Amino acid sequence: MEAKACVLHAEKDLHIENVPVAEMADDQVLVRIGAGGICGSDLHYYLHGGFGVVRVKQPIVLGHEVAGTVEAVGSKVTRVKAGDRIALNPSRPCGKCKFCQEGQHHHCLDMWFYGSAMRTPHSQGAFRELIVAEEYQCEPVGDKVSLGEAACCEPLSVALHAVKQAGNLAGKKVLVTGSGPIGALVVAAARYAGALEIVATDLHDAALAKAVEMGATRTVNVSIEPGLKADEFTADKGYFDVAIECTGAGPVLKDVIPALRPRGTIVQVGVTGEVPIPIGVIVGKEISLVGAFRFNTEYALAARLIKEGRINVKPIITATLPVERAVEAFELASDRRSQMKVQLTFS
Amino acid sequence: MEAKACVLHAEKDLHIENVPVAEMADDQVLVRIGAGGICGSDLHYYLHGGFGVVRVKQPIVLGHEVAGTVEAVGSKVTRVKAGDRIALNPSRPCGKCKFCQEGQHHHCLDMWFYGSAMRTPHSQGAFRELIVAEEYQCEPVGDKVSLGEAACCEPLSVALHAVKQAGNLAGKKVLVTGSGPIGALVVAAARYAGALEIVATDLHDAALAKAVEMGATRTVNVSIEPGLKADEFTADKGYFDVAIECTGAGPVLKDVIPALRPRGTIVQVGVTGEVPIPIGVIVGKEISLVGAFRFNTEYALAARLIKEGRINVKPIITATLPVERAVEAFELASDRRSQMKVQLTFS
Amino acid sequence: MEAKACVLHAEKDLHIENVPVAEMADDQVLVRIGAGGICGSDLHYYLHGGFGVVRVKQPIVLGHEVAGTVEAVGSKVTRVKAGDRIALNPSRPCGKCKFCQEGQHHHCLDMWFYGSAMRTPHSQGAFRELIVAEEYQCEPVGDKVSLGEAACCEPLSVALHAVKQAGNLAGKKVLVTGSGPIGALVVAAARYAGALEIVATDLHDAALAKAVEMGATRTVNVSIEPGLKADEFTADKGYFDVAIECTGAGPVLKDVIPALRPRGTIVQVGVTGEVPIPIGVIVGKEISLVGAFRFNTEYALAARLIKEGRINVKPIITATLPVERAVEAFELASDRRSQMKVQLTFS
Amino acid sequence: MEAKACVLHAEKDLHIENVPVAEMADDQVLVRIGAGGICGSDLHYYLHGGFGVVRVKQPIVLGHEVAGTVEAVGSKVTRVKAGDRIALNPSRPCGKCKFCQEGQHHHCLDMWFYGSAMRTPHSQGAFRELIVAEEYQCEPVGDKVSLGEAACCEPLSVALHAVKQAGNLAGKKVLVTGSGPIGALVVAAARYAGALEIVATDLHDAALAKAVEMGATRTVNVSIEPGLKADEFTADKGYFDVAIECTGAGPVLKDVIPALRPRGTIVQVGVTGEVPIPIGVIVGKEISLVGAFRFNTEYALAARLIKEGRINVKPIITATLPVERAVEAFELASDRRSQMKVQLTFS
Repeated sequence: MEAKACVLHAEKDLHIENVPVAEMADDQVLVRIGAGGICGSDLHYYLHGGFGVVRVKQPIVLGHEVAGTVEAVGSKVTRVKAGDRIALNPSRPCGKCKFCQEGQHHHCLDMWFYGSAMRTPHSQGAFRELIVAEEYQCEPVGDKVSLGEAACCEPLSVALHAVKQAGNLAGKKVLVTGSGPIGALVVAAARYAGALEIVATDLHDAALAKAVEMGATRTVNVSIEPGLKADEFTADKGYFDVAIECTGAGPVLKDVIPALRPRGTIVQVGVTGEVPIPIGVIVGKEISLVGAFRFNTEYALAARLIKEGRINVKPIITATLPVERAVEAFELASDRRSQMKVQLTFS
Repeated sequence: MEAKACVLHAEKDLHIENVPVAEMADDQVLVRIGAGGICGSDLHYYLHGGFGVVRVKQPIVLGHEVAGTVEAVGSKVTRVKAGDRIALNPSRPCGKCKFCQEGQHHHCLDMWFYGSAMRTPHSQGAFRELIVAEEYQCEPVGDKVSLGEAACCEPLSVALHAVKQAGNLAGKKVLVTGSGPIGALVVAAARYAGALEIVATDLHDAALAKAVEMGATRTVNVSIEPGLKADEFTADKGYFDVAIECTGAGPVLKDVIPALRPRGTIVQVGVTGEVPIPIGVIVGKEISLVGAFRFNTEYALAARLIKEGRINVKPIITATLPVERAVEAFELASDRRSQMKVQLTFS
Repeated sequence: MEAKACVLHAEKDLHIENVPVAEMADDQVLVRIGAGGICGSDLHYYLHGGFGVVRVKQPIVLGHEVAGTVEAVGSKVTRVKAGDRIALNPSRPCGKCKFCQEGQHHHCLDMWFYGSAMRTPHSQGAFRELIVAEEYQCEPVGDKVSLGEAACCEPLSVALHAVKQAGNLAGKKVLVTGSGPIGALVVAAARYAGALEIVATDLHDAALAKAVEMGATRTVNVSIEPGLKADEFTADKGYFDVAIECTGAGPVLKDVIPALRPRGTIVQVGVTGEVPIPIGVIVGKEISLVGAFRFNTEYALAARLIKEGRINVKPIITATLPVERAVEAFELASDRRSQMKVQLTFS
Repeated sequence: MEAKACVLHAEKDLHIENVPVAEMADDQVLVRIGAGGICGSDLHYYLHGGFGVVRVKQPIVLGHEVAGTVEAVGSKVTRVKAGDRIALNPSRPCGKCKFCQEGQHHHCLDMWFYGSAMRTPHSQGAFRELIVAEEYQCEPVGDKVSLGEAACCEPLSVALHAVKQAGNLAGKKVLVTGSGPIGALVVAAARYAGALEIVATDLHDAALAKAVEMGATRTVNVSIEPGLKADEFTADKGYFDVAIECTGAGPVLKDVIPALRPRGTIVQVGVTGEVPIPIGVIVGKEISLVGAFRFNTEYALAARLIKEGRINVKPIITATLPVERAVEAFELASDRRSQMKVQLTFS
C-alpha cells in the first residue's frame, strides 16, 4: 500500500510523492491523517536544509504536528477504535534506557521523533495520508474540534512543558517574550496554570493582538522604547517572577534579566546558538535559567485541553492549504509577519 | 574610643589607622576581633580599586571574614556574654523589606555588608581591633577551634549556600570547577551534604591536592587534555548531576555543559562579566543554570560545623600575618598559585 | 468615637453594642466596614462558646471576613486613600519572630487575628461599623464587585492556600471532599490553578450543584453507594493525584486514601480532633498528608482575583442581613443544609 | 541443579530443603549467596504466618537481604563477571507499567519482591545457596567488606529512601524514633545526608548506644519522663525540622507531633494498623506526614556507600549463624532487646 507524502529532498526541494505504508502489527494503529501544522523546524529544513549541525542528508518526509482519524486497529489495541479522531504524538521513546526508566522520556537515548534529521537514517515524518503508529501515540480528541485544532496538540504540548519547567505559576507575574505560535500558546498555557499577570512582548502589534486573544493580560511592543527597560519592570530589583523566552534572540534574553526579580526563573524555549549572558547578574540576583525541550507527558494533557475546549487554539491557525499546495504553504509559513501557524490538509 | 583598622584609600593605598569605635547600645555587642581572612573582593579593592562598576570612592575599612571575642554586651543581650568566642556575620539586612519578609535576607533592598563599596557612603568593614555589632550577628564558636578557623565561617557560608542552591546532593555526582578557597570549601560542603562523587578541577595540582584534603573523591587537572572533554564525562549525554562553578571563567562554564546530564544543574558561584552560553544545548538538555549569591541562614550552620569539627577548614588557611603587615598580606594573597586563604591577626 | 459592633458575651449571648474606635496613627487607616461573612469559627463561638480548648472568656467582637471603604488615612499612608474600596486582611503577624522572618507569617509566634479567642485578652474582631487597621491589611478591590463579594477574600485566601499546599495542580486530577463554602472555594481555586479534573463530593445534591457552579468537572454524592469506593477510583492503586479534604470528618479522610494514587497528596483543611489513620497504607502508597492553616500571602491574590472577576464568589453568598439582625443571621448560618455563606451588612 | 534453601511451610514450620535452581538465560547471572539478614517481615512470616491480610498460603523461600559471589554469567551480561562479589537487589519491577515508566519502580503494578507472600503464587525468596538473578539486580561491593555487611544493602536502602522522602536534610534537626536496625540505619543515612542534629529515641539504652555508634548526636530514652515532652523540644511550636518514625507504634507518632516545628515533616517508616492522629494539630502547624515504602534507586547508592566504607553497617550485625541453624537464628532474631540484625551464612 502506498500513500501521498510531503518529501523534502534538499533545501527548497519539496515534492508530493507516494511512499509505502508499513504493515500494521497487532498492537498498532493505521491512521488517516487529516491535518498537519508546519513547525519552525519543518521550515528550517525546507528553507535551509537543516539548522546548526542537523542537515538533511537523505529524502525525508516532513511533519510532526498532525491529527487524523483511525482507519484500522490491530487485534490487541484497546485504547482507540476505527473512526476515532485522534491527535498523533510524534515521540517514540525506547521506554528502556535510563532516562525513560526515570520518567524523562523526552531525553531518551534512542528517541524517534517524526520528521527529524537529527539521526541518520532520518526519522521519517507524518505529513502523509496514511501512517502506521503505536497505540500509545494516539490521543482521542472527540468530535467537537476540527482536526486542524487537534493538530495543535504538539505545539501546545511544547508550551505546557515550558510552563511546567517554570514550576507552579498560580498567582505569579509572568513575562512571555515573543508572541509567535509558541509564544502565543505559552500565554494560553500560563493562563491555564493560573498565572496572575501575563505580559507578552513582540516587535509587531499583530502578534501582540493574538497574545491578548490567547490570554495575555498586557502587552509590550519591544520595538518601542523603553520596552522592558521601563522603570516599572526594573524597580526593586525586577518585576517578574518568571520569564518564558520564546524568541531565541540573544538580545531579548539579556533584556529579560533586569526585569526579573531575585530568585526568578527564565525558561528558555527559543533555540539559538551562543548568547552572551551577564554572569555577574545571574549570580547577584540568583536567577535560574532553565531549558525546556519538546514535551514529555504534556501531549496527553494538551489533547484533553483542546478536546474539552479549555484552551482554544483557533486564533493561531492563520492559513490552511491542501497538501498538493505544500510548497506554497511552506513559502507562506516563511512570512512570520503575516502568519502564525500554517496547516496542510490531507485527502 | 578608637581602634586600629585596615583602611583602603585607593588602589594599592592601604594604611593601618585609628578609627572611632561606636557607642554600644543596649542590644549590641562589642567584639574584639582576633582574625580576619582576605577575600577575593578585598583583593579587588586593594589591587584595582574595585570591580566592574563598584569603585572605592572614599576611605573604606576592608574585611568581612572575621572572628573574635566578646568584650562587652548591652543590657538586653542574651545570646552571648563577655568572653565568648564568636564568628561575626558581616550581613546586616533591614529585616523589613519584601525580600527580608520572604526570608530572602541576602536580597535585602537595604543591605549593609561589611567592607563593601557597592553603596555610597560605603559600608565599612571589620578589619579592625574593636567593632560594635548587633546581637544577631554573633555566632558562638566554642573553645576548640582557633579564631582563624572561625573566621572561615563566612566563606564556608558561601559554599554551603552554593550547595543549597543545587538542591538535595545526597547520592549525587558533583563537579566542582576551580579549587581555590571557595571551590575547596564547596567540596567540603558538598561532602557534608552527602554528595557521592565529588570531582574537583583546577589548572594546578597543588590546588587539587587541597581539594582532596577537603573531600574530593577525584580530581581533574583541566590544563591537561582532555580534561572534562573525556568520553567518560560526556557519554550518554553527560556524567554529572550537578556542577558548582567557582572560577567565574567563561571557557570553564562552557566545558561544564557537555559533562552535565540532561536536567542537570549548574550552580554559578564565580563572578565575571558576560559569557557566551550555548543556548541550544541548555534547551536540548534542559540544563538549569542558577546563581548563588553570598549566603542567607547558612552563616549559623557554618559556625556550628566549624565549632563541632564536622568541617575542617584548616587546610585552606595558608598564611597568617599580623595586621601591621597588612600590605604584605594583601600582596601575598595576590599570588593565587601559592596561596589559598591569607589571614590577618589583630592585637 | 464609638461604633456599633457585634459582641459575643457567651454562648448564644450576642449583642449589637457600641465599642470605642481607636485613634488612627500616621501609618494607619480608618475603614468603614460594609459587609462581613459569618465563618465556621464565628458560628462555633456563637453556638458553643468556642471549640476544643479555645473558649470565649471575655466579651469578643466577632468577625474576620470583612470588606469596606476607606474613611480616612494617616499622613504616611500611600497604599490606599479615602474612598477606596478594600478587603481587610484579618492577620496581623509581628513581622519579627523567626517564622515571620522566614516568610511564614501565618505561623507567627505573636499573631493577632481578628475575632479569635485563642489568646487572652482575646483578639477583637471586625464585625463593627468602623475599625482602625494597618496600611498593609488593606487590599484594594476596585469598583466592579460588591463589598459582599470582597468580604469573601478571606475564605478564598484559605482555599488558595490549601491549593498551594498541594503543589502544582496544572494537569492534575483533584478530589475535593465537602462542598460547603470552603470546599466550593477550593474547587474554584483548584480550577484557577489548572486542575484538569475536579471531583467534588458532598452528602447533599444542593451543595454539589454549587460545586459545579464553582468549577467542579464532576460530583459524587457520597451518601449514595459506592461513593469513592467505586472501582474507577480505586483501580490501579488509586485515581486522584491530590485530595483536598474540607470536611474534617474522620470517615471521609479514610475513604479518600484508597482513591489516591501512590505518592499522592492529601491536603487537610477541615479541622477536627483525632482521626484513626491507616498507617500501613500511608506507608505502602507513600501518601503525603499535609495540613493547610489559614493563609499567608494568598490574601492579596484573593483580592486581585475577585477584583478582576477571575473567580466569581457570588454563588456561595446565600443570604445577607443587616447587622441589627445578627442573631437571626447566626441562626440562619447554623443551617448548613440551606446555607453556604451568610453575610452581614453594616450601615 | 538443586540448592539448599530456607523454606517456610507455615507459622514456625521452617525447614532447610533442596529447591531447584532455574536455568540461567543469556542476560542472567547465577549467584552463590554468602550471607542473608533476617528482616522484620521474615520474622512475621515465621512467627505468625504473615501480617495483616498477607498470609503464607504455600511453601515460601524466605529472605530478601542477601549478598554473594557471581558463579557464572550469561553471554550478554556486561555489568558483572564470575567471581565478583555483589549485593543482590530483591526488587524485580516490570519496567513497563505506568509507575515504572514514571521512574517510581517501587510502586510497580506487577512487582516481584523476594520472599513476599503479598501475591499468590508467592514471590520466592533468596535464602538459598544458589539463585539465578537479573543482571540489573547485581550491585558490585568490591573486596573490602564482608558479605554480611553487603547483605545490609537492602535495609540501608530502606533507610536512604526514608531520608530522601524527608527532602534535603543538610543542616536540619532530625528526630529518629526507634533505634532498632532500621532506625539505626536511618540515623546513619541522615548523618550521611548532612543532618546537623540527629536525636535518636528508644525504650532501651542498648539500642541508643548503637544509634550513637551510627551517628546520632544525642539520644532520648523515652521510657523516662519527660522524653519528647520536654520543654526544649516543644517550645516555640516545636524543635525538629524532620522526624523519621521507625517504630510503627501509634503513641510514638503522637508524641512526635508537638516536638515538630510548623511546616515540619514526619516520614513514616514503621508499619502498623490504624493510629489516631490529631488532625487539628496537623492543620494548625501544617505538618506533613509522608510514607516511605521500601526503596527505589537507593539500592545502588547503598551498595556504593557500604563498598566505599562511607557508612559502616557492622554495629548493627549482632549475630551470624549458618543456614543449617536457621530455626535457632529466627528464634534469636525474635529477641528484639538483645538483637539488632541476625544473619545467616550459606555454604
